[in-house]
Amino acid sequence: MEYFAAPVAKLIEEFSKLPGVGQKTAQRLAFHVLNMKNTDATELANAIVNAKKNIKYCSICGNLTDKDPCFICRNKKRDESVICVVEDPRDIISMERTKEFNGLYHVLHGSISPMDRVGPEDIRIKELLHRIKDGVVEEVILATNPTIEGEATAMYISKLLKPMGIKTTRIAHGVPVGGDLEYADEVTLSKALEGRREI
Amino acid sequence: MEYFAAPVAKLIEEFSKLPGVGQKTAQRLAFHVLNMKNTDATELANAIVNAKKNIKYCSICGNLTDKDPCFICRNKKRDESVICVVEDPRDIISMERTKEFNGLYHVLHGSISPMDRVGPEDIRIKELLHRIKDGVVEEVILATNPTIEGEATAMYISKLLKPMGIKTTRIAHGVPVGGDLEYADEVTLSKALEGRREI
Repeated sequence: MEYFAAPVAKLIEEFSKLPGVGQKTAQRLAFHVLNMKNTDATELANAIVNAKKNIKYCSICGNLTDKDPCFICRNKKRDESVICVVEDPRDIISMERTKEFNGLYHVLHGSISPMDRVGPEDIRIKELLHRIKDGVVEEVILATNPTIEGEATAMYISKLLKPMGIKTTRIAHGVPVGGDLEYADEVTLSKALEGRREI
Repeated sequence: MEYFAAPVAKLIEEFSKLPGVGQKTAQRLAFHVLNMKNTDATELANAIVNAKKNIKYCSICGNLTDKDPCFICRNKKRDESVICVVEDPRDIISMERTKEFNGLYHVLHGSISPMDRVGPEDIRIKELLHRIKDGVVEEVILATNPTIEGEATAMYISKLLKPMGIKTTRIAHGVPVGGDLEYADEVTLSKALEGRREI
């Protein structure tokens, strides 16, 4: 790094801490910043500081938001009787893109993973139970990831909710649309077979 | 973008302006920043602002530097009789990594490219001629890129320097070390053949 002037070296170092950014990419980004207009560089720096400063978690669902409650929890047009449980705020974006879901969300901020010492009390399960108590919620859709941890978390939550008389559903597993059966792994394919429906 | 809170959307937008960063990567970077410690995010933002503020061009060679002249031009141990001409400050880093060159540099900040309306007067050629005037320089190594524009620029400069009695050399073209002849393109291979040396 001795070939770079100190502020450049520092910028490369900071960029290389970002996910998926190696030494070479960090250099490219740093030199790009140096070639930017001053105002553009300031805007990038401000966007980082502002996002960090103004974004917090929604006190109801746990989504990332600049206003509490978040725009989904605030929206009176949404169906309060259905809650979709996801692991991460990013998953809300993916679900919203489908334009098929009009209920509310609940972000767990993780999944049960004994290997990483994450137990049920470490993710937002008790907050979910608290939301269900008032009797408005009729269905909880478990949209945790199709991984071992996601499945275990879904299973754990469903066992808590069923005795409360709440309809608990899990999103379907199967072959992705546009995919190729030839390249589908056997677990996915057997899940797709298991979940087959009459047409 | 309507699914993101405004400061997040802004951050994603700013990241996606960086080279090689698409919408998806920008999202990943933005969410990474949101999960960073406050101090780390501030450090990234400050690194951008500081690099932009403190980095300027060396008044002698045109390299990026925080002190003028740059650490290479300031270094009295370097051989002042050889100047290596490159297109971009990044090329200096690449040359320095070889640890084979102990002379000075001259950054052109571009190459002659009529297609992009860049003529000889738009790059730092007159500054190079000015540096040569005092008679210290004996050799100019033309290390512009092995592209049409780089070759044209090297040719142009060599035609200016030869009448001044300066030794003008061009870096060798050939197959890259560790490469495979099978995958070498025919132009590179014919250049390698042309530049063959007795061993």
